[in-house]
Amino acid sequence: MKKKKAVREERSIGALLAPDIIELLKISPADVAAETEAMHPADLADVVELIPRKRISALIAALPPDRAADVLEYVNDRLRNELLAELTTAQAATVVAQMEPDERADALEELTEERADEILEAIPAAARRETEELLAYEPNTAGGLMTTQIVSVPASETVERALLMVRTIARGGRREAMNTVYVTDEAGRLAGVMSLRELLAAAEGARVGDVMTTEILSVQPTADRDDVASLISEYDLVALPVVSEQGNLLGMVTVDDVIDVIQEESTEDAQRFGGLEALEEPYMESTFLNLIKKRGGWLCVLFLGEMITASAMGYYEDDLAKAVVLTLFIPLIISSGGNSGSQATSLIIRALALREVTLRDWWRVAGRELPAGLAFGTLLGLLGFARVEIWQYADIYNYGPHHFLIALTVGISLIGVVTFGTVVGSMLPFALRKIGFDPAFASAPLVATLVDVTGLIIYFSVALFLLRGSLL
Amino acid sequence: MKKKKAVREERSIGALLAPDIIELLKISPADVAAETEAMHPADLADVVELIPRKRISALIAALPPDRAADVLEYVNDRLRNELLAELTTAQAATVVAQMEPDERADALEELTEERADEILEAIPAAARRETEELLAYEPNTAGGLMTTQIVSVPASETVERALLMVRTIARGGRREAMNTVYVTDEAGRLAGVMSLRELLAAAEGARVGDVMTTEILSVQPTADRDDVASLISEYDLVALPVVSEQGNLLGMVTVDDVIDVIQEESTEDAQRFGGLEALEEPYMESTFLNLIKKRGGWLCVLFLGEMITASAMGYYEDDLAKAVVLTLFIPLIISSGGNSGSQATSLIIRALALREVTLRDWWRVAGRELPAGLAFGTLLGLLGFARVEIWQYADIYNYGPHHFLIALTVGISLIGVVTFGTVVGSMLPFALRKIGFDPAFASAPLVATLVDVTGLIIYFSVALFLLRGSLL
Repeated sequence: MKKKKAVREERSIGALLAPDIIELLKISPADVAAETEAMHPADLADVVELIPRKRISALIAALPPDRAADVLEYVNDRLRNELLAELTTAQAATVVAQMEPDERADALEELTEERADEILEAIPAAARRETEELLAYEPNTAGGLMTTQIVSVPASETVERALLMVRTIARGGRREAMNTVYVTDEAGRLAGVMSLRELLAAAEGARVGDVMTTEILSVQPTADRDDVASLISEYDLVALPVVSEQGNLLGMVTVDDVIDVIQEESTEDAQRFGGLEALEEPYMESTFLNLIKKRGGWLCVLFLGEMITASAMGYYEDDLAKAVVLTLFIPLIISSGGNSGSQATSLIIRALALREVTLRDWWRVAGRELPAGLAFGTLLGLLGFARVEIWQYADIYNYGPHHFLIALTVGISLIGVVTFGTVVGSMLPFALRKIGFDPAFASAPLVATLVDVTGLIIYFSVALFLLRGSLL
Repeated sequence: MKKKKAVREERSIGALLAPDIIELLKISPADVAAETEAMHPADLADVVELIPRKRISALIAALPPDRAADVLEYVNDRLRNELLAELTTAQAATVVAQMEPDERADALEELTEERADEILEAIPAAARRETEELLAYEPNTAGGLMTTQIVSVPASETVERALLMVRTIARGGRREAMNTVYVTDEAGRLAGVMSLRELLAAAEGARVGDVMTTEILSVQPTADRDDVASLISEYDLVALPVVSEQGNLLGMVTVDDVIDVIQEESTEDAQRFGGLEALEEPYMESTFLNLIKKRGGWLCVLFLGEMITASAMGYYEDDLAKAVVLTLFIPLIISSGGNSGSQATSLIIRALALREVTLRDWWRVAGRELPAGLAFGTLLGLLGFARVEIWQYADIYNYGPHHFLIALTVGISLIGVVTFGTVVGSMLPFALRKIGFDPAFASAPLVATLVDVTGLIIYFSVALFLLRGSLL
């Protein structure tokens, strides 16, 4: 009876089940539905994603509608859309009607408007209205995330009556987490909150209004999903109520939806920092064409930016011809600026995303990054100086009679380039936020590109200053 | 009564409260404690972090012990350690005794062993034993994350008796989320689970064993926190039970702890990808020396790696002297390889972290990235070719009589470098995982460094092949 699952390492649940699927494929969809009855919907969704594409709709249609709805909540978006398009409208409506209101809205939002309307027409009127209300909110807002299946009781009820009400609702088979009981005043506005535990712990005979917590965090439906996630995470909440401007309770956002938001935001930030447009789907589900589009655009932009290096170097071509030895250190010097910039940018983007620092902290950050950049520059400058001199004296490479000046040029340039890279890398996310962009657009490649051009100019300026009259 | 908080944008709760603090500072710690009674502990923690350092211990000592415990759970780790070191042992023990068992173990783990022992000696025996057991687990495992404050009832009890038991426990004032009720068999092993809602919904007179869910996901205390987070997130769980090898219930990991784990892991991955060692504390709390240490090490390693570019270019110095014009495109070409590599790496690291791809998918990824790299290489190669020819014909720059061959060299090199960068960038995370490292060590700077050296060799090889007899 008891199913214990060892922690998986390198394999998905679906993969673990693969041998069973082979078995399942020999039997009819109805039998599959019966056989997999005890399986967690997330696991069944993994199985569904692995079986041959043409058998999937038959299996979904053979599942009881509430089971099918659960499974569709876990399969990937693209497959869910395809299945909801393939099923008959009646079949699709039966399944969709069984979904949680927030999941239902999410699922319909992904379909063509025509198909979504067909399905909406065919589901019960109450569910349809509820869904239409949710569909009116932007997907990336509290309204787009919230479920309307909430439990609320009037403040004037006794604890015992409230428990009875909750019990009746629970027996009604609502599935969403019901651990939070909201309390409303006589005008229907949100007045308090209690956990189911607190309701159980309350003295018999007490009024709900006397035992509820009145310190409530709430958001309006237009609140950004980022803000919702950060409130839930900062205050360790299980759910956050969503209220209208008048204070009326509209729904709640639960912590499991927030985990998805946090994961998605982290993924988007990581991809942007890597220098591409965020994918909207998992890597393996993204089409090849989409991958090309999301990456090619930025690659071209960065390439066009980097073209300035060719122009900058063209400006110094005559000097380069006189001192070819200078070219040897170009990659070393400009990449050091890019590396120190990339470090600083990743720190600041993340600190901004977690709200550890805010826009007005920029000068405090600059006050740490400038000395840090000078320290790194001095460190690498010494290494660079030593590299030239050691190679010279150990006879590994002959930099000519002016080797000391060349070593000095490399060392001093590194101080300048690394300090510049660190400061630019740390300030760019602030600058982007200031002008209204996502700081995560300050990608490692973008910082490197910005620093490359300046790095070359710093290097050649130092060289012209130090080597004028000797090598140049 | 009702406290509504608008969604914050660029300011922390603490900052919002700053004017009030000025007020608070004029009054005694006891009055501050009374004045802030209704404040969420997370908000009070923000206030504590803002008031002058020397007043904090007095305020903490003036709070009721359970309130002080709540606040210490939300202040930053460094401050909490300092405060627990400053309070008298008796004060510290009173506060620590009121913490959740898992928070208590976390707090003591950060102190010196001597101080932790002093405090442990002074707390009640039951709490001490519980804490010592938790301290025995590694912090990054399920055992290190779990709380032992769980609610369990025997399977043989009736629903009504079970509800009564839960109610008694709830009235006992336990604070951790009690929405999950675990069910044990006669040997004390985990046999099933029910939510408080399901217990309330169950028919009166039924036995717990008949209504519980027997499909239980559980982990052993040694399970990695990453695996715990991924199970809770994949299955939308509120809590995950932790059981011994024999199946005995030891504790549970709750979803709010998992959010912290997910945030921490994302932060660590982002910082590693940026090319530094992950900080263990928020950016602003990290000491300057620590920042230098975490970044300086990798900067030096990358610098030493990048030194190979100077050697590689030294090898071609005679060719460079003959064709200085070739040097102009070095930054452009090698950075394009780094950029495409950085994109691919960020995609794959994230897909591995979210378990969208696993180690054995490497050849499927290579099968997408190789053509993607060729496509990007061709795109940038055409742009590079056009850049040289357009500048030549528009008379912006004179590349000499062999401009066409130079343009061809740049174009073909870009195809090679970008393809190489894309493939290396996508395969490096797999290679690192294969040899037992965290794929996130494949940072953008590391990929760029790897690609820079090879990029130079590709560029010069193409040049030697195409320009031999003309320019070289």
